Amino acid sequence: MEKKKYVYLFSEGNASMRNLLGGKGANLAEMTGLGMPVPQGFTVTTEACAKYYEDGKWINDSIVAEIYEYLEKLEKISGKKFGDPENPLLVSVRSGARASMPGMMDTILNLGLNEEVVEVFAKKTNNPRWAWDCYRRFIQMYSDVVMEVGKKYFEELIDKMKAEKGVSQDVELTAEDLKELANQFKAEYRAKIGKDFPSDPREQLLGAIKAVFRSWDNPRAVYYRRMNDIPSDWGTAVNVQMMVFGNTGDKSGTGVAFTRNPATGEKKLFGEFLMNAQGEDVVAGVRTPQSIDELKKVMPAAYQQFVEISDKLEKHYRDMQDMEFTIEDEKLYMLQTRNGKRTAAAALKIACDLVDEGMITKEEAVMTVDPKQLDALLHPQFDAADLKKAVVIGTGLAASPGAAHGRVVFSTEAALQQVGRGHKVILVRQETSPEDIEGMHHADGILTARGGMTSHAAVVARGMGTCCVAGCSTLKVDEENKVMTIGDKVYHEKDHISLDGSTGMIYDGKLPKREAEIGGDFARLMAWADEFRTLKVRTNADNPHDAGIAVRFGAEGIGLCRTEHMFFQEDRIPAMREMILAKSVQARRDALSKLLPMQRKDFEGIYREMAGFPVTIRFLDPPLHEFLPTKEDEIVDLAKRMGVSVDEIKDTIESLHEFNPMMGHRGCRLAVTYPEIAEMQTRAVIEAAINVSRETGKTVVPEIMIPLVGEEKELQFVKNVVDKTAHIVMDENRMELPYLVGTMIEIPRAALTADELAKDAQFFSFGTNDLSQMTFGFSRDDAGKFLDAYYNKKIYEFDPFAKLDVHGVGRLVSMAAKLGRTTRPDIHLGICGEHGGDPSTVEFCNEIGLDYVSCSPFRVPIARLAAAQAAIKANKKKA
Amino acid sequence: MEKKKYVYLFSEGNASMRNLLGGKGANLAEMTGLGMPVPQGFTVTTEACAKYYEDGKWINDSIVAEIYEYLEKLEKISGKKFGDPENPLLVSVRSGARASMPGMMDTILNLGLNEEVVEVFAKKTNNPRWAWDCYRRFIQMYSDVVMEVGKKYFEELIDKMKAEKGVSQDVELTAEDLKELANQFKAEYRAKIGKDFPSDPREQLLGAIKAVFRSWDNPRAVYYRRMNDIPSDWGTAVNVQMMVFGNTGDKSGTGVAFTRNPATGEKKLFGEFLMNAQGEDVVAGVRTPQSIDELKKVMPAAYQQFVEISDKLEKHYRDMQDMEFTIEDEKLYMLQTRNGKRTAAAALKIACDLVDEGMITKEEAVMTVDPKQLDALLHPQFDAADLKKAVVIGTGLAASPGAAHGRVVFSTEAALQQVGRGHKVILVRQETSPEDIEGMHHADGILTARGGMTSHAAVVARGMGTCCVAGCSTLKVDEENKVMTIGDKVYHEKDHISLDGSTGMIYDGKLPKREAEIGGDFARLMAWADEFRTLKVRTNADNPHDAGIAVRFGAEGIGLCRTEHMFFQEDRIPAMREMILAKSVQARRDALSKLLPMQRKDFEGIYREMAGFPVTIRFLDPPLHEFLPTKEDEIVDLAKRMGVSVDEIKDTIESLHEFNPMMGHRGCRLAVTYPEIAEMQTRAVIEAAINVSRETGKTVVPEIMIPLVGEEKELQFVKNVVDKTAHIVMDENRMELPYLVGTMIEIPRAALTADELAKDAQFFSFGTNDLSQMTFGFSRDDAGKFLDAYYNKKIYEFDPFAKLDVHGVGRLVSMAAKLGRTTRPDIHLGICGEHGGDPSTVEFCNEIGLDYVSCSPFRVPIARLAAAQAAIKANKKKA
Repeated sequence: MEKKKYVYLFSEGNASMRNLLGGKGANLAEMTGLGMPVPQGFTVTTEACAKYYEDGKWINDSIVAEIYEYLEKLEKISGKKFGDPENPLLVSVRSGARASMPGMMDTILNLGLNEEVVEVFAKKTNNPRWAWDCYRRFIQMYSDVVMEVGKKYFEELIDKMKAEKGVSQDVELTAEDLKELANQFKAEYRAKIGKDFPSDPREQLLGAIKAVFRSWDNPRAVYYRRMNDIPSDWGTAVNVQMMVFGNTGDKSGTGVAFTRNPATGEKKLFGEFLMNAQGEDVVAGVRTPQSIDELKKVMPAAYQQFVEISDKLEKHYRDMQDMEFTIEDEKLYMLQTRNGKRTAAAALKIACDLVDEGMITKEEAVMTVDPKQLDALLHPQFDAADLKKAVVIGTGLAASPGAAHGRVVFSTEAALQQVGRGHKVILVRQETSPEDIEGMHHADGILTARGGMTSHAAVVARGMGTCCVAGCSTLKVDEENKVMTIGDKVYHEKDHISLDGSTGMIYDGKLPKREAEIGGDFARLMAWADEFRTLKVRTNADNPHDAGIAVRFGAEGIGLCRTEHMFFQEDRIPAMREMILAKSVQARRDALSKLLPMQRKDFEGIYREMAGFPVTIRFLDPPLHEFLPTKEDEIVDLAKRMGVSVDEIKDTIESLHEFNPMMGHRGCRLAVTYPEIAEMQTRAVIEAAINVSRETGKTVVPEIMIPLVGEEKELQFVKNVVDKTAHIVMDENRMELPYLVGTMIEIPRAALTADELAKDAQFFSFGTNDLSQMTFGFSRDDAGKFLDAYYNKKIYEFDPFAKLDVHGVGRLVSMAAKLGRTTRPDIHLGICGEHGGDPSTVEFCNEIGLDYVSCSPFRVPIARLAAAQAAIKANKKKA
Repeated sequence: MEKKKYVYLFSEGNASMRNLLGGKGANLAEMTGLGMPVPQGFTVTTEACAKYYEDGKWINDSIVAEIYEYLEKLEKISGKKFGDPENPLLVSVRSGARASMPGMMDTILNLGLNEEVVEVFAKKTNNPRWAWDCYRRFIQMYSDVVMEVGKKYFEELIDKMKAEKGVSQDVELTAEDLKELANQFKAEYRAKIGKDFPSDPREQLLGAIKAVFRSWDNPRAVYYRRMNDIPSDWGTAVNVQMMVFGNTGDKSGTGVAFTRNPATGEKKLFGEFLMNAQGEDVVAGVRTPQSIDELKKVMPAAYQQFVEISDKLEKHYRDMQDMEFTIEDEKLYMLQTRNGKRTAAAALKIACDLVDEGMITKEEAVMTVDPKQLDALLHPQFDAADLKKAVVIGTGLAASPGAAHGRVVFSTEAALQQVGRGHKVILVRQETSPEDIEGMHHADGILTARGGMTSHAAVVARGMGTCCVAGCSTLKVDEENKVMTIGDKVYHEKDHISLDGSTGMIYDGKLPKREAEIGGDFARLMAWADEFRTLKVRTNADNPHDAGIAVRFGAEGIGLCRTEHMFFQEDRIPAMREMILAKSVQARRDALSKLLPMQRKDFEGIYREMAGFPVTIRFLDPPLHEFLPTKEDEIVDLAKRMGVSVDEIKDTIESLHEFNPMMGHRGCRLAVTYPEIAEMQTRAVIEAAINVSRETGKTVVPEIMIPLVGEEKELQFVKNVVDKTAHIVMDENRMELPYLVGTMIEIPRAALTADELAKDAQFFSFGTNDLSQMTFGFSRDDAGKFLDAYYNKKIYEFDPFAKLDVHGVGRLVSMAAKLGRTTRPDIHLGICGEHGGDPSTVEFCNEIGLDYVSCSPFRVPIARLAAAQAAIKANKKKA
């Protein structure tokens, strides 16, 4: 067997080797191949990372030898030597996974410096301040990243030094100051670690590579992976690259740029740079950078070369590029290129433009847009009228579009706490860092005082589709005391503000939001998606309003209309409670007869909105105690209205108590014990269908769905009640009406006996919420207490309630689909859990040949696009 | 296609046609074939019953025609004619299912009488009193059974008549009185039904047949079937048989007898008879009958003939027979024979005796004993010492052996209520009737004032293995006022009494019980069973005491040792609570270190008792809140002891609240979040094993079972903790010890991914309690509220927590077994749910090739016998 190769020079790779070299490494190799000015280096592969974990977090000797071998090759290429004071090779060590995970993992710059090298380096470059700045930065980064000493100790030392010297900015510190700081840093390192700071560059290099491997598993990376469906076994590659310096003086600089505007999609170079800075300074948002257009004036030749390279890269990759560059003493170096992250609006515009420019096909355009991103486009906006009256308290950069409002919070913890209590929050930070990622994910909006359009806050928020206003210069944030001032206004934690991420405006108080406007690019791309997909997309909607939104978003029917939501309304719940408290069948029927006209009216409204599309109506599902009052005054009210004693009401509430309500008296079990409920609901469904059919001249074909079935005879029993009632109603109305009766598959036993259920069910709809709960054996309400430990320990890598567990629950689903078709080859199959709008679940549903997915109205476009992508992928696989 | 035959003359059938003709019909046919004196008749088949239900409870015309055709044949055979006043054919119409369901379904006697016939009949028989008594009985039965008018209306009329006439016994009423009663009955019928009582015998016959078919589905039959695993689709046959009369006068009588004593197994004719009575009088226990031995004196010829027939029948059927006979004017008629129900002790003795008599093989002997019955044998008895001090308050017939104590109740409802609250009850009735069956099933013991050894109470109680004292003449029961007097003592509902069903003694108060003594027949039969079975039998035991009992009952290991039960003990729960309330890992470890020595000691005790048999120890399973106090004073105590505030304790309790605790933070989820618990438990398991191995010189091989696993990585994580700790402990003790790590399969996802789990699990144990709950999607604690409706509506026919749902849950179990073996061909497979002791589940486990079943100590012999029967059946199937 040939020995596996774990290290590649940039000149040995290319863009197709992304899985092995990671995105960054593969693209550096590709750019090298294209003859672009890339500082050379080598990539330690993702397989080496996997091996590191396999071997119990250890880089084995043969890989170490291979790394040193390639280090020597790099020395030859560069003509410099590691640790040679006269001509030292300095390198950066950066992570680079298969999928881009911006800021999630660690980076170390200026590696190769030590006491001896830095002295000579300072002399030779004739720039001792720069040399010592590089060295102290390296010690700081290495201590933090490799040895986990913690940045704050070093920052304290810097602050102390600045105070001693009476200066306020880092740049005001002299070479001597920085040298002294470097010594203090090393002393701090020794105090914390108990050993001297490593001076051997080879030891430094191995430490750094290990640290990058290890950072693949840091909590924020794990969280990011879970959010973005990135498997933990992919691992990260490590890129070891010759350093170039943007911080050698006024002829140097560093920047990032996109070939098109990542917020709007406009075809125009978009980016920022900072003169005399290292790359991290731009991304971190510590200094506010200049627009890329300014570079034209500052350094025209380098600008021109960069524009040409940008063009070439976009054409080469046939997609918008996100690039990093450094200029060292007027010479341009490319440090990275990748397909750029973009807002949903930009994604649509770029996709359409690229098709119009003849660069990509419609099929490819459909594949370039991440379905999840559409969410942002579809989110509500503020109403113009409201904005006129609103109090503007400040403005910042419109970093990520959308409208947001909520309680001000200053930390992830506070965000989680408030969200846990059902409040929306605006996360307010001086600047965000990867540690804030979970808080950002839960926030309705993000507001920062510092940082530009490519700052951490802006990039991450756009990726999430979360509204973000960044770099608001009038904002002062006191995170410690939980107070912010913006202009002359003071806000404490839990005060309300509103953000408009499309304009950068910040408003006092809580502004109402309204629905999104969807542009022409959206419609074009969706039309293309519809050409390719075979899976139908329905919606979960319980009222005419939601049904209407969904139809406008392209829903082709209702997959789940939850009838109980109708009963919770204030004008209905009294009758519902009477029904529950009824002591006889007759009393129950009396109460039900009050609910009948309301329910019929709801259905009529929904049928009208759906204008001929199929409507699946699920019969009453939740346990009855959910409808009963819990507060004393409500109980007293109810007792008065019903003319019974308070104690009697309390007794009934007590008797309805369940130990495990999720597994209790609910779903079709209610219809088995109280068939009169199913009778009333059938009557409402059929009467409404007859009325609307007559009114519109179009036959409404309702689909009645029996929930929580676990056994064929159970379904038979309820179906029998439905059929009998339906025929009575049709006779009464002298009209025949087609209707279907089917069942939800949400109990494991239903899936296991689906061949039998299919005898009576004309359709199945997979209720993957409950099916997941019962198959995993944990309830969604309670799992929060331990799921974090499971994520941290990498036992589960994603939330099984957001993304279908194809591996376990999926086996049941595909088994049930197969069994169902055995009995009834033309059985109609759909999915109506919340998973229905999740792209990876949509792909699975496409694979096992379901007829439709059903999801919330705002996710309909996502599902349409995901269905198209699934169909395209499946066709490719077939071909 | 040949036309299906739905009706058979007795002379057309035989014993092998049981499935088609029902037990009674097949045996009547067999006896006819043997030339025994059987009143002739015909049987409407079980298939006709199925057809009746299929056709929507309707007997179709072609079957009606066939019935009339056979009626004519019977008229020819009997030389009598239906409805002919001069020579009327009178018949009985009786149910007869494939399996005996004594008293569960309906019977009608004297059918064929009407106003005209009875008049002539009275004259011709010269016995008008008898004729009118037959007629009024017929009206009463027919009204009750066929038209559901309700017995009580007729009983009220009889009482009124007796009061008017100043008599106290039915027999004191004259022919004229009875004639008048018949007229009153018919008026009552007209008033209730709105039509005249049918005088056409053919109409009567069809009505009666339909009523018997319908009675297959009456609530008590449904309940009995559920208790006895009789499928509802079997249906019942209907036997239409010429009447013979035991109530024509002093030369007539009727009785029931067994070829051997059904209580002890003694080889001696055992039975009872009543002169001048109809069959129902004996069974109903209204009059106390005479011993069968008396018949020798009363009617020697008939007695002699009966003895000969009995002998012949027992030899023919090669089993103890239960026979009904009637003597009409000195002539003996056989009305029924069947294999007799018997007590467990009798069953064992009869099986051994029949082998010794050379009548059956050991294999056949093993097959004759119903495993469920052994339960009775194995139940506790009163201690002789306690009995000496006990206050005897009365005696009755020792109708069904065993000791019982509990609260006095007078109705099924009260029994269910008290049992629901966790109390044991003694059901006290004047005499029981099939309506009481559910109450009897839930009672610890049954006490009746009337009825003999073959009364309803006695027969049913023996079948159930429930202690019963019948026919206590000093007992007066006032069911209405819920009070009984026995001698001079008065007991109200909820007062305590104790019963000894082996002696017939009734005691005041609640006597303690002790374990059963097991006789030699038991050991012989069990030894034969062990020869045939291949499935091992283990026990569920959490302490040395239970483990010891189980070993004496033949357990071959512990399949489930629940470690949490140990923590609930009074001396341990404080440390457990400290552990739960700990705010740091260290504090948790400190509390755990207090539990370690106690747990280790438990395991040592168990290992010693099991003397080398394997012991499977399940790690902590229940949610932690189960261990916390709920009462204010306990909370205050705990706060004091732990030196924290009451509020802090309450906060913790509150924070541990779960919406669905069954699906919450429990099982291995505890070990994932608090690995130190698993460390302590591993340490206890391994240290104890090392200690006992050294002490006994025999190596203990513990099997550590991780509960509630749903995912491979979860098992890996916990297994890793176990392995690390185990090796530390072994190093500390300088001893290598083999041990296994496996998992419970009790979450559907575990079954679905069993191929993956088997990579890490050396054994699987199917936890069918939880697996059933999650597969059905209902919790055992809550299902009670709706399961009755499910039984009544025949959606479920048995309790899925008592008998494994082979159809649904079983699919998961066999899938998991198969998947597990794919990965690890020698994986050890067992079952440890409560189903492990259920014979039908044992058969299933044998079928899918599990290695063992595990059940509670008292069920071990049942499982051994069931395993033997399963193996014998499987061999027969193979052959």
